[in-house]
Amino acid sequence: MSARNCSLIGKIRSSFRRTGIDGLIITDMTNVRYLSGFSGTSGFLFITRGKNFFVTDFRYREQAEQEVSGWEVFHEKGTRIHAIKCLVRMTDIRTLGFESSAAYSFYRSVSRTGLTLIPIEGLVEKMREQKELHEISAIREAIRRAETAFLEVKPHIKHGARELTIAMRLEERLKKNGCKKIPFEVIVASGPNSAMPHAQPTGRKLQEGDFVLIDWGGEADGYFSDMTRTLLLKGRDIRKQKKIYTTVLEANKKAVSAVAAGIQTKQIDNAARDHIKKNGYGDFFGHGTGHGVGLQVHEAPRITWTTSSTVREKMVFTVEPGIYLPGFGGVRIEDMVEVGDKKASVLTSLPKILEII
Amino acid sequence: MSARNCSLIGKIRSSFRRTGIDGLIITDMTNVRYLSGFSGTSGFLFITRGKNFFVTDFRYREQAEQEVSGWEVFHEKGTRIHAIKCLVRMTDIRTLGFESSAAYSFYRSVSRTGLTLIPIEGLVEKMREQKELHEISAIREAIRRAETAFLEVKPHIKHGARELTIAMRLEERLKKNGCKKIPFEVIVASGPNSAMPHAQPTGRKLQEGDFVLIDWGGEADGYFSDMTRTLLLKGRDIRKQKKIYTTVLEANKKAVSAVAAGIQTKQIDNAARDHIKKNGYGDFFGHGTGHGVGLQVHEAPRITWTTSSTVREKMVFTVEPGIYLPGFGGVRIEDMVEVGDKKASVLTSLPKILEII
Repeated sequence: MSARNCSLIGKIRSSFRRTGIDGLIITDMTNVRYLSGFSGTSGFLFITRGKNFFVTDFRYREQAEQEVSGWEVFHEKGTRIHAIKCLVRMTDIRTLGFESSAAYSFYRSVSRTGLTLIPIEGLVEKMREQKELHEISAIREAIRRAETAFLEVKPHIKHGARELTIAMRLEERLKKNGCKKIPFEVIVASGPNSAMPHAQPTGRKLQEGDFVLIDWGGEADGYFSDMTRTLLLKGRDIRKQKKIYTTVLEANKKAVSAVAAGIQTKQIDNAARDHIKKNGYGDFFGHGTGHGVGLQVHEAPRITWTTSSTVREKMVFTVEPGIYLPGFGGVRIEDMVEVGDKKASVLTSLPKILEII
Repeated sequence: MSARNCSLIGKIRSSFRRTGIDGLIITDMTNVRYLSGFSGTSGFLFITRGKNFFVTDFRYREQAEQEVSGWEVFHEKGTRIHAIKCLVRMTDIRTLGFESSAAYSFYRSVSRTGLTLIPIEGLVEKMREQKELHEISAIREAIRRAETAFLEVKPHIKHGARELTIAMRLEERLKKNGCKKIPFEVIVASGPNSAMPHAQPTGRKLQEGDFVLIDWGGEADGYFSDMTRTLLLKGRDIRKQKKIYTTVLEANKKAVSAVAAGIQTKQIDNAARDHIKKNGYGDFFGHGTGHGVGLQVHEAPRITWTTSSTVREKMVFTVEPGIYLPGFGGVRIEDMVEVGDKKASVLTSLPKILEII
């Protein structure tokens, strides 16, 4: 077993006493990948004090052999519950922890086996928050691919171009630059469409005075990146657009500057939100300021006002304040940052100054 | 409220007495879309005897206005639990049904409000099994787009081409043909890679005597298609490949012929599996024979040997037997069928006869 493997499984086992379990079943596929390296879409981990099993079915036999090492491989035949019963008999455990993100129906069917079940909340998600070196390096590459793709497509972002065409071109360039997956459908939202924080690209053509909000991400080795830039098309009177843009840009900078190990995530959100409120747009920034990025494009921690946790070194998350005026348009400026021992390094490198095209 | 809306909500309400609930919360986003038309990624439905609410947050305000009609729109501010508490107070319900596919953690946090919670299993999924006319028509269009894309890419599937290049080209053509989403990453698996039923495309170049297994799907109006074809590259001795291909093709045809309203799904699986077993490949067909396709690319019913349900008219599902010999290669032939009053119509139209290229 590799040193990394040992240390991860060690961390998990060391939580057993605290939670009163003698075994843990990991069913979240991203957590399965994080711990075992398996990138397929069906399988689970079964960890006891002395054993650690990787379980999957026929379809992934070969892939598991290639990707998974340091785990005893167990082949699921028939139902999942049947496999769990076998593993329980083999390891003689009584109290099984399960991830509280698992479906209620899974909980119910396992509980019928007579085991005592204890929900475990966010254990592996918490481990995933602080990135290892190889993870940071993959994320940096995912950013590099995304930024390269953007720069290749940028000359095509102009008056008369269609949102959908720009989005397709960007996805194409992401793939050509080596992204095996695209973390989410590229958003290209122009004019009034940019007021919808999660707009889908349409056939709309870019017009004078439009904001063009582009939210996209790349991938490398299973790790994602996520960023947003908003451009502005020339127009007769763009004073309002400029004011909105400047407010969001300042909010972005204030939030980035606030990032430091040891503070509360809420303080980062406050830094952005207060600035936007002060400028009279408080009602038009309805989403959180950021989220962790890694094997998932949205993962812990959340940077928002409704919940808070401590910012820790080696966390990687987005900082993405926005202002959205229904019927008019919206601006979001999204960077990715890595928390260092004192402050944050901004990982994204594309300029943020207002570009009028 | 539209007639469709009325009838769907009517069906849901008519299940209240049987399950002893006076309200139901729908959190599965595909079910939310099916019932309300909302295509965003965050929101839920809250249905009582007299009211039906669509709930989402700030980010989807505009999208909800465009997509959702016939539902009272309620804006979530703060946490989801807070919104649920408000709705419970407004409607005075005591016993709330929730989808058993929801996360255990959701169940637990709602149960802390003091409501009696009843898990509801597969209610909307069951409704979704039998397709309405507009759904069949969208699925047909999703198939047409996928087949057109395949035919456009086919000339490039030849000796020396790389799996990844073919896959990227196919995804590109899917988008150009109008698919706004790609239901899953296109699989192009050649030679030994084709023995992995869920292989990811690699940089491998196609070689003499290779199977080239291509599994891909299209989209139209949110509905998906899913199909697989396996080609064979010329080679010195391809007798074994031919035997495997013919066995899978016959299994596919036998399973398609078995489809009829009123039979058990297991009988369809049996038809394919028996034929493969008889030909000595029983150990090399480890997955089920098919699955429903609609707003999700994998949905109910499942056509497999571990579980069974009744085949009903207007169901749309795949028939996809396969044989996978580790280290050698694999074949899968996947069609989509629609269950008519007596037998099945095959919706996919690409030829299935062995093509040696």
